[in-house]
Amino acid sequence: MEFEKVLLSRKSCRKFTDKPVEEEKLEKVVVSASLAPLGLPKMCTPVLTVVTDKDALAGLKGIYDAPAVIIVSCPPSPAPGIGDQNAGCVVEMMSLMATSLGLGNIYLYGVTANLQKDEEMLKKLAIPEGYTPLAALALGYGEEDVDICKEFVGKLSVTKI
Amino acid sequence: MEFEKVLLSRKSCRKFTDKPVEEEKLEKVVVSASLAPLGLPKMCTPVLTVVTDKDALAGLKGIYDAPAVIIVSCPPSPAPGIGDQNAGCVVEMMSLMATSLGLGNIYLYGVTANLQKDEEMLKKLAIPEGYTPLAALALGYGEEDVDICKEFVGKLSVTKI
Repeated sequence: MEFEKVLLSRKSCRKFTDKPVEEEKLEKVVVSASLAPLGLPKMCTPVLTVVTDKDALAGLKGIYDAPAVIIVSCPPSPAPGIGDQNAGCVVEMMSLMATSLGLGNIYLYGVTANLQKDEEMLKKLAIPEGYTPLAALALGYGEEDVDICKEFVGKLSVTKI
Repeated sequence: MEFEKVLLSRKSCRKFTDKPVEEEKLEKVVVSASLAPLGLPKMCTPVLTVVTDKDALAGLKGIYDAPAVIIVSCPPSPAPGIGDQNAGCVVEMMSLMATSLGLGNIYLYGVTANLQKDEEMLKKLAIPEGYTPLAALALGYGEEDVDICKEFVGKLSVTKI
């Protein structure tokens, strides 16, 4: 897909169909995570947990019944915010790739905030010792097709110096 | 440019030529920031500062002599890490757009870490009161052309559940 079309088609999907995500699409989304820029990668490279097991998905709150969730966990941040910035970059990269593959998707934050406090789920998901889940992407086939839904218009406040 | 080509062409550029970035390319990069996913946008939408003035650039440490730097500043994070994750998403979106336009670019973290402590520069750059610069993108024409330089290979540790 053309780059700008992907950017203009990405939006938060909150209604998924039951159709599972094909293994090869899931794999492409996972591999795209490796192409995100990372700060201090020797100390702060995230790890991914791909969850498609229905029992495990049922234990995650706020995933909009998506058939797949990819959790991004980081080691302790070597400087303030690096872990979160890396997690953000990885989730966004996966979100764009999922969009380009026609998959509905949504960036999740609350899910991992809850997961951090849930020792049982952390074990069930085999989150490595010392890593903290910081963000996640839910993905699947949305009830609406992926298509251009945004305009190329600046919305942030900008100061020019 | 094709989406996957952009992903495979993005890399950190640390050598820039003197050629300035055309106004319309800078504008496209700025607008692309609005297409990034944001957590809790009502409370935590970043603002951008586009710096091309040579005096102002000279006051920023670690920008690899780039002719343009876009600083991303956030209000206090309403929940742990949201501001940093939002900043990460915005910088990555701008990095991909810059790449698609043939611009060398690099995600900067240390620059804003230093800037946070430099009251004089914060004023000179008119960073709004209550906002903290968290990350930035340096951009310009790199000494090497933008082209595919990566393989589509997964490098992160992945657990499947």
